[in-house]
Amino acid sequence: MTTLFTNVTALRMDEDFTTLRQGFVAVDGTHISYVGPDHPQGTFDQTIDCTGKVMMPGFVNCHTHIPMTLMRGYGGGHDLQSWLQDFIFPAEDRWDDRSLAAATGLGLAEMIASGVTCIADMYMRPGVIARQALDAGISANLSVGAVYFGRPEDFSPDTCEDCENHVRLYEDWHNAGDGQIQVDASIHAEYTSCAPAWEWVAGFAQRHGLGMHVHISETQKEHEECLNKYGSTPIQLLNRYGVWDTRAIAAHCVYTTPEDWALMVQKGVSCVHNPYSNLKLGSGVAPIPAMGRAGVNVALGTDGVSSHNSVDMFADMKLAAILHNGVGRDPMAVTARQALEMATVNGARALGRNTGRIEAGRIADLILVDFTAPNLTPCHDEAENLVYAAHGSNVAMNMARGRVIYQNGAFLTLDLDRIKAEVRQYALPLIFG
Amino acid sequence: MTTLFTNVTALRMDEDFTTLRQGFVAVDGTHISYVGPDHPQGTFDQTIDCTGKVMMPGFVNCHTHIPMTLMRGYGGGHDLQSWLQDFIFPAEDRWDDRSLAAATGLGLAEMIASGVTCIADMYMRPGVIARQALDAGISANLSVGAVYFGRPEDFSPDTCEDCENHVRLYEDWHNAGDGQIQVDASIHAEYTSCAPAWEWVAGFAQRHGLGMHVHISETQKEHEECLNKYGSTPIQLLNRYGVWDTRAIAAHCVYTTPEDWALMVQKGVSCVHNPYSNLKLGSGVAPIPAMGRAGVNVALGTDGVSSHNSVDMFADMKLAAILHNGVGRDPMAVTARQALEMATVNGARALGRNTGRIEAGRIADLILVDFTAPNLTPCHDEAENLVYAAHGSNVAMNMARGRVIYQNGAFLTLDLDRIKAEVRQYALPLIFG
Repeated sequence: MTTLFTNVTALRMDEDFTTLRQGFVAVDGTHISYVGPDHPQGTFDQTIDCTGKVMMPGFVNCHTHIPMTLMRGYGGGHDLQSWLQDFIFPAEDRWDDRSLAAATGLGLAEMIASGVTCIADMYMRPGVIARQALDAGISANLSVGAVYFGRPEDFSPDTCEDCENHVRLYEDWHNAGDGQIQVDASIHAEYTSCAPAWEWVAGFAQRHGLGMHVHISETQKEHEECLNKYGSTPIQLLNRYGVWDTRAIAAHCVYTTPEDWALMVQKGVSCVHNPYSNLKLGSGVAPIPAMGRAGVNVALGTDGVSSHNSVDMFADMKLAAILHNGVGRDPMAVTARQALEMATVNGARALGRNTGRIEAGRIADLILVDFTAPNLTPCHDEAENLVYAAHGSNVAMNMARGRVIYQNGAFLTLDLDRIKAEVRQYALPLIFG
Repeated sequence: MTTLFTNVTALRMDEDFTTLRQGFVAVDGTHISYVGPDHPQGTFDQTIDCTGKVMMPGFVNCHTHIPMTLMRGYGGGHDLQSWLQDFIFPAEDRWDDRSLAAATGLGLAEMIASGVTCIADMYMRPGVIARQALDAGISANLSVGAVYFGRPEDFSPDTCEDCENHVRLYEDWHNAGDGQIQVDASIHAEYTSCAPAWEWVAGFAQRHGLGMHVHISETQKEHEECLNKYGSTPIQLLNRYGVWDTRAIAAHCVYTTPEDWALMVQKGVSCVHNPYSNLKLGSGVAPIPAMGRAGVNVALGTDGVSSHNSVDMFADMKLAAILHNGVGRDPMAVTARQALEMATVNGARALGRNTGRIEAGRIADLILVDFTAPNLTPCHDEAENLVYAAHGSNVAMNMARGRVIYQNGAFLTLDLDRIKAEVRQYALPLIFG
């Protein structure tokens, strides 16, 4: 399948942050084959006129728990501990594959409609998520988030369920769809497991060349309890067990320190900023501008819908762009360009994905944003409008891996009515009674 | 004109925060005539089936500068002082009535599409804004924002242009459209005028029974310079000149003190919280939970699009609901109910408007939100979904003062294509060259 985009205005998201104007973008199979001012040679299976629209790379959502879409707003109005103990955890105990597939479909629909083309997810039954993501067409780094609550001296990979889950996920799904699905190793968090488990997961990642996905220092409580228990921050503690000896993403990083950042830079650990979740749950405000100055690669995530309670990466990008200005009383703390980079090219780097930029040779993950919408009129600067004024509902087209998966409000790879029926029939009754 | 809404699920926004289910809402002329479980007697000019939708009061946007919609993203990427001096102020010098009307139409379209039914605006040429708002159908409290940079001893209402502007606006527009348009007195801010001007504006408000609209303590600089110059906070300083002896709204209040809040409660001054603008411009985070505990009536505003850079009151309501949780590390700092109250009934109280609640006798300012949208599925609780998950694009219908002005993506009282053409032809060339 080949596609030619004509009359393209595009934020390339290249090193010099250039904008293509009145140009052409060609796609051959899953990859971008040409970006430039001239009509490329040859014929194309389809031509898409981009007049009135602006192209940017699809969003890379680097931290999600996609089936939690089913728990949107569930247990709201309760404090964090009751919300988790009385609502979220009991609901999570009741998943089966069919209900989880329906919930995943719902979450994917919301993401695709608002321009996401690549995700990193950590949740139970990730094989079910893999199947759904593969069919929906977006790229996904999937992981199981190992927990181990036993005594360290009793740990054995043969009896640790999440070790088995790692092995099964890797064997069943790693590199499925020509790399569309990639499996990451994952430790849920420092406080939900212990050293032998960390060593095993780190070793598993090393043996198979996998990335790593960990929740890090999301709350003050977790950060300080780790300091008290181990005399070390979570980042530095896990480093002793080889957890960062591979490409890795550290979600949240709200309470990380300058020493943590230096280690992250040294080891190539990316921070995934989740501003909506951190605000809503009362976790705090991650020191993103300081991490950026320290050289940490900062990417962006929505976290689960249960702690957000929606997915619209335009909103996440805008919040990342303004929150630190306000809290730090510096209107230049995060620029529009930096927010766009977090949401695209930094995310690609964090996940080890050849996406996030509009250039020949990259995966064709591209979205078109309707700049004729009232909320994008007038346009003095495309980047300013994309970061501060666009909404997910302005996405006119989503192309993932060279395939148009959403256009003018219609999903081309998933059946939203069927998903909603399955949510009603299977998922809601099972999970919430 | 009479309307019957059937199969209504509605957040009434009453004292007990009750939800009407499978009910009826009837509208007669500009007012709600019935809300309840029974099909009301009589015939209706139109019937609107609300199956799959949730009704709430239209949003009250209590602080806007609507023509600044034309400056969306203009001068972005510059620090606050350059942004104002080199971009915004020079552009504002070039308005004429025709360009300002076009810009206002654009701003009204964006607001109406995302569910706003009532605004408080402060800007130049407010008579032009009055005309546009009257035709568009929403209620508007309009004001001119008096500035006076002369020496106090030279002040005379006969030579102060904004005194004349107050008189003209009042005479031309106060109570136009059977109260649809109301004129407020207004002092732009403490730092842009002086005592004789404050006394004159306060006296004008008193003589004509008008409300008051003032920017208060938006930035640390302005707050501290006032303390240094007068030995008093802006709120307390203006009180000496009678500025709060009428219904009043104080926009921003980022640096107000407990003593200020006590005075606001005593005098009935409402705070208008503008979280997007305060974050984007690096102003800071207003102490909203503490103000609420002190008893201050807190309403919500978008501020001008030039410092936001969009209007979607759902986004503003969500940010107001989560920002203080994160900054104060308290997930219950602002509840969903409180955020909904800020955006509706508190706004009505702030503007002296009989709206913001769904009950018989109130103005029929009502919106329907499409709860079949993926981002509102599932729904465990309507309020949770409205505050944390809904977007402006989920607004299926906007009824202002008993008239449907927006339905299923179509504007019924304004011509968006004509507005956009006028923006292109008149406004952009004149203002930006």
